[in-house]
Amino acid sequence: MSGSTDEIENLIALMAKLPGLGPRSARRAVLHLIRKRALLLTPLADTMSQVAISARECLNCGNVGTSEICDICEDPKRATGELCVVEDVADLWAMERSGVFKGRYHVLGGTLSALDSVGPNELRIPRLLDRVISEDISEVIMALNATVDGQTTAHYIADQLQSQVRLTSLAQGVPIGGELDYLDDGTITAALRARKEI
Amino acid sequence: MSGSTDEIENLIALMAKLPGLGPRSARRAVLHLIRKRALLLTPLADTMSQVAISARECLNCGNVGTSEICDICEDPKRATGELCVVEDVADLWAMERSGVFKGRYHVLGGTLSALDSVGPNELRIPRLLDRVISEDISEVIMALNATVDGQTTAHYIADQLQSQVRLTSLAQGVPIGGELDYLDDGTITAALRARKEI
Ligand SMILES: [Zn+2]
Ligand SMILES: [Zn+2]
Repeated sequence: MSGSTDEIENLIALMAKLPGLGPRSARRAVLHLIRKRALLLTPLADTMSQVAISARECLNCGNVGTSEICDICEDPKRATGELCVVEDVADLWAMERSGVFKGRYHVLGGTLSALDSVGPNELRIPRLLDRVISEDISEVIMALNATVDGQTTAHYIADQLQSQVRLTSLAQGVPIGGELDYLDDGTITAALRARKEI
Repeated sequence: MSGSTDEIENLIALMAKLPGLGPRSARRAVLHLIRKRALLLTPLADTMSQVAISARECLNCGNVGTSEICDICEDPKRATGELCVVEDVADLWAMERSGVFKGRYHVLGGTLSALDSVGPNELRIPRLLDRVISEDISEVIMALNATVDGQTTAHYIADQLQSQVRLTSLAQGVPIGGELDYLDDGTITAALRARKEI
């Protein structure tokens, strides 16, 4: 197909499975890697091997890190009583980059979806309800995407937690249909500052 | 920065150096890799390690493969007397995907450029002139990009080879300013079939 040999073909095929890379950009990436063997290809291979061994989901919040409990959950300074609920780890990272939130997170691992048969037990919702009590949470901030499924999920969780805690959601600045991970840090900061009661 | 730990941060930083991936898509790719650890991350790490050890430039033509002389140069069926000159390996692979060319290639490794001080000896041009004689080449097909530097390079090579061989260039179908690697296979096939004398 490409005039190269099997290992290089394999590498192109694997790279093409990454989100954001198609077959053509995978081929260009592989040629770039081969040209930058010492600076990029070897370090990337080594780091991928390390991450393949060490990466794990935090047992408490679902964040991805290299220990059983992630750095944020371990940090006593972040036991502020505020818990920010996000759909996935990319959203948690986007919130962290904005630097405005000082509490802890809870990663649901998706949204409720009748169509895809995703119920509360397919998400990290039971664990969320436990944490609100065990970590003495006073405010749950819903930072779910402004999509139908995201908002359905927020309302379901709000129903479960009603009267136990203050419930807020990101407000001003999150565009309709917008996904957190695609917003700039300033927008996220503004949305968090202007959060409102559900 | 991202709420993850050092190895994962390193992996994101390295991935962001790939062409076509910025910091955001690198983060998404890394989360995808961690989710698909067994299916994607580990095989990718292993294949990258193999390629880092085995990839090399063909001593004859400049193609990238895993042996000193590439499969195309080794293949006696491809000793057709036709030599296709391309700027880089991505272009060679694009030609191969079209499947229409049955001869061998010569990868220049760039184009002549007064601005960037790239002269004939910075490219694989002396080796090309040798090959035309030693491989008994009857036709050199210039498949350089339709850019100013590409065409300058084609004319320089044509001057060197004048009267020694038939000189042709890809013609119909290559758009002005177009780069081979971005063309579909049909366009390349049409351009090769309609090649014309220089
Ligand atoms: Zn955690
Ligand atoms: Zn070769």
